[in-house]
Amino acid sequence: MLKKAGVAILGLGVVGGGTYQILTEKREYFKKTQGVDITVEAVLELNKERALSLGVEESKIAGSIEEVVSNPNVDIVVEVIGGTGVAKTFVTKALMSGKTVVTSNKELFAKYWPELEAEAKKMNAGLFFEASCVGGVPIIRTLQDGMQANKVLSIKGIINGTTNYILTKMANEGSSYEEALKEAQRLGYAEFNPTADVEGFDATYKLSILSSLAFNKKICIENVYREGITKVTKEDIAQGKEMGYTLKLLGIGKDTEKGVEVRVHPTFVKNDNPLASVNDSFNAVHLVGDAVGEIMLYGRGAGALPTGSAIVSDVIFAAKHDEYFYACFENNTKGNKETKFVSDFTSKYYIRLTVLDAAGVLAKIAGVFAKNDLSISEVKQVAGTDGKAQVVIVTHISKESAVKKAIEKLASLEEVIEVNSTIRIED
Amino acid sequence: MLKKAGVAILGLGVVGGGTYQILTEKREYFKKTQGVDITVEAVLELNKERALSLGVEESKIAGSIEEVVSNPNVDIVVEVIGGTGVAKTFVTKALMSGKTVVTSNKELFAKYWPELEAEAKKMNAGLFFEASCVGGVPIIRTLQDGMQANKVLSIKGIINGTTNYILTKMANEGSSYEEALKEAQRLGYAEFNPTADVEGFDATYKLSILSSLAFNKKICIENVYREGITKVTKEDIAQGKEMGYTLKLLGIGKDTEKGVEVRVHPTFVKNDNPLASVNDSFNAVHLVGDAVGEIMLYGRGAGALPTGSAIVSDVIFAAKHDEYFYACFENNTKGNKETKFVSDFTSKYYIRLTVLDAAGVLAKIAGVFAKNDLSISEVKQVAGTDGKAQVVIVTHISKESAVKKAIEKLASLEEVIEVNSTIRIED
Repeated sequence: MLKKAGVAILGLGVVGGGTYQILTEKREYFKKTQGVDITVEAVLELNKERALSLGVEESKIAGSIEEVVSNPNVDIVVEVIGGTGVAKTFVTKALMSGKTVVTSNKELFAKYWPELEAEAKKMNAGLFFEASCVGGVPIIRTLQDGMQANKVLSIKGIINGTTNYILTKMANEGSSYEEALKEAQRLGYAEFNPTADVEGFDATYKLSILSSLAFNKKICIENVYREGITKVTKEDIAQGKEMGYTLKLLGIGKDTEKGVEVRVHPTFVKNDNPLASVNDSFNAVHLVGDAVGEIMLYGRGAGALPTGSAIVSDVIFAAKHDEYFYACFENNTKGNKETKFVSDFTSKYYIRLTVLDAAGVLAKIAGVFAKNDLSISEVKQVAGTDGKAQVVIVTHISKESAVKKAIEKLASLEEVIEVNSTIRIED
Repeated sequence: MLKKAGVAILGLGVVGGGTYQILTEKREYFKKTQGVDITVEAVLELNKERALSLGVEESKIAGSIEEVVSNPNVDIVVEVIGGTGVAKTFVTKALMSGKTVVTSNKELFAKYWPELEAEAKKMNAGLFFEASCVGGVPIIRTLQDGMQANKVLSIKGIINGTTNYILTKMANEGSSYEEALKEAQRLGYAEFNPTADVEGFDATYKLSILSSLAFNKKICIENVYREGITKVTKEDIAQGKEMGYTLKLLGIGKDTEKGVEVRVHPTFVKNDNPLASVNDSFNAVHLVGDAVGEIMLYGRGAGALPTGSAIVSDVIFAAKHDEYFYACFENNTKGNKETKFVSDFTSKYYIRLTVLDAAGVLAKIAGVFAKNDLSISEVKQVAGTDGKAQVVIVTHISKESAVKKAIEKLASLEEVIEVNSTIRIED
């Protein structure tokens, strides 16, 4: 009954190293608990010293991708190189050779899932990507095999650990964005070039994958509205805190009668929202299904062993099952023609202004909101220095377009010195 | 490519009704999104009116279990009767006829999993039980297919919605146990005879199933230490709140070098523990894996549609896959011989005493703790009326046996009027 599978690992960086470690240290454990005997048959790693230092036998270090994919002992190819350059070439070659692929590469997957899946189907190979989204949290498997009874109505997630670390630090220690980013870089939570994380690209890749699965429609990255955290200020975080909100970079997907709405942006959530207490580099995904109601999954979104855990769980699944998951929607590079998207989405808004501290200013501001059909749920004015005051306004659910118009108008008022920030709120 | 499967539902109560509703209303949706055509081919329900009122065609209402299991159109039998009487007979007959079984019946499963699985294996039938634990939360699938890379070190869960509703009500409104129970009964969260829930039997069934899967060892219900919530007082809940703790009925499983520890009892958790904010009838399971670290799943633990969601997800999985999950441990009715259990487990303790409000009493009490090698982390004394005072003591991690000895000694002291409560604490 013991099933055997040979694995090749492409790239022995942090995640590749973690994967190698789990697979080799737990070979006997997996034989006993899973009924599978999994061996690492090849690694492809330019830095040979790195491979040897991890304990890879010299004979298992391949010289080229061709050597890997022509190796009859290799059934499953794990790609943990990242990016869309060689990773794409290598994954494609592996699939073309009929190898099952397990990848943690969200960028590759978000951009090229349709063509990779087409290749996999043609060759009757598996294509697994649990590790591409939210590290060790089994969100992909849950969407594929745990939520099938549901039409998923919404998905909201803290799906990037770097930005969550930065925002948590800003909230807890009152640091500025720059200070928190530096600390995240020092600790290895943020890259030297942090753009992919802090500008929301990484979250956009993940949201496109997750919302495609959740809604059974191909959601391309171009469909996702994206706004990063680089303009977030400690003043807004502190102000939000006083009003009972926590600031998070959320990936939000909604599938309503009006259409699909997918967006990544800094968002205030109420403190009693379970997402509000997801701190540091932890991740969480909150789903609403029409049958199951609310569910939430929480865990480590990154790291050698958590991501390695997701990869190895895919490897074991692939070794045990002969039937693979393919998307049930039309997996088109350009999306599905019949999918409608909401362009002018609705939300509650938090707007902070610096105004002249004079009589009648608040009335004038309120007038702008009223004229644009925006209903206000909360107003707060804090007297400042030099004859200036801070005004914070929270709206009821409003159309984005109406809020933009109001802000333009506000910015043009003599009494308004600056519109400091506009942040969306999710309950 | 469309796979077909016929389903029979045994029992059209709350969950059976929810399951029927999902399967019939979403038949077209499942064809499109899952590639499976699932039809309800038979129901077995004594109350024919109930079946007809749900829209079941008269010709589909079976007269006996024999009629169901001999129906060649039925591939999957859903058992939602509950209990271990006819449910056991019916499930056994279904398996003996080679039908795949999907059940929500935790009592049946906790008590008879080994023999049911043996029957299923013999007939190459599937045996699915996602709905038996924590309703719509995909915890079974996660343990089977999402955590395989891990040795699970601990599992801690709020796995009974009724008691969580009662404890939440007591905490938020200062109700007594009796008042909160009555309200839970009025709302249908608690049964007329609430014993199975409030005495922890239901949680014990679930913990035995979950910890067996988590630890890859058969954990029988007899192995689980059980203590219900009937003795919980509003005084302790209020006192805990002041000290930063929330009281929950937890199912706790730990697999350490010393052995396995499985227990269900009222437990104080620190307010910043993610389990502390799981309120009302919501459930959550927190796992620690040696690779993935902490993960938590949260959602509705009961109800027609959440539990129906889990059942239908099993039905779809069964319809799509030909390979079934069987336990990888020796699935023995009496457990595995080589499994060691910790009998004298360790925990932090909260102990509340009513004492004479006199000089030297606290010193005497502290002396009893010291003599039993118990180290105290916190002491609180509240002056009462009539010359009495309340003393609350929190210990560091201590052995259960030492705590019991100390309490016996305390109870025998003249200065101690009553040992009111002893509650374990998990960080």
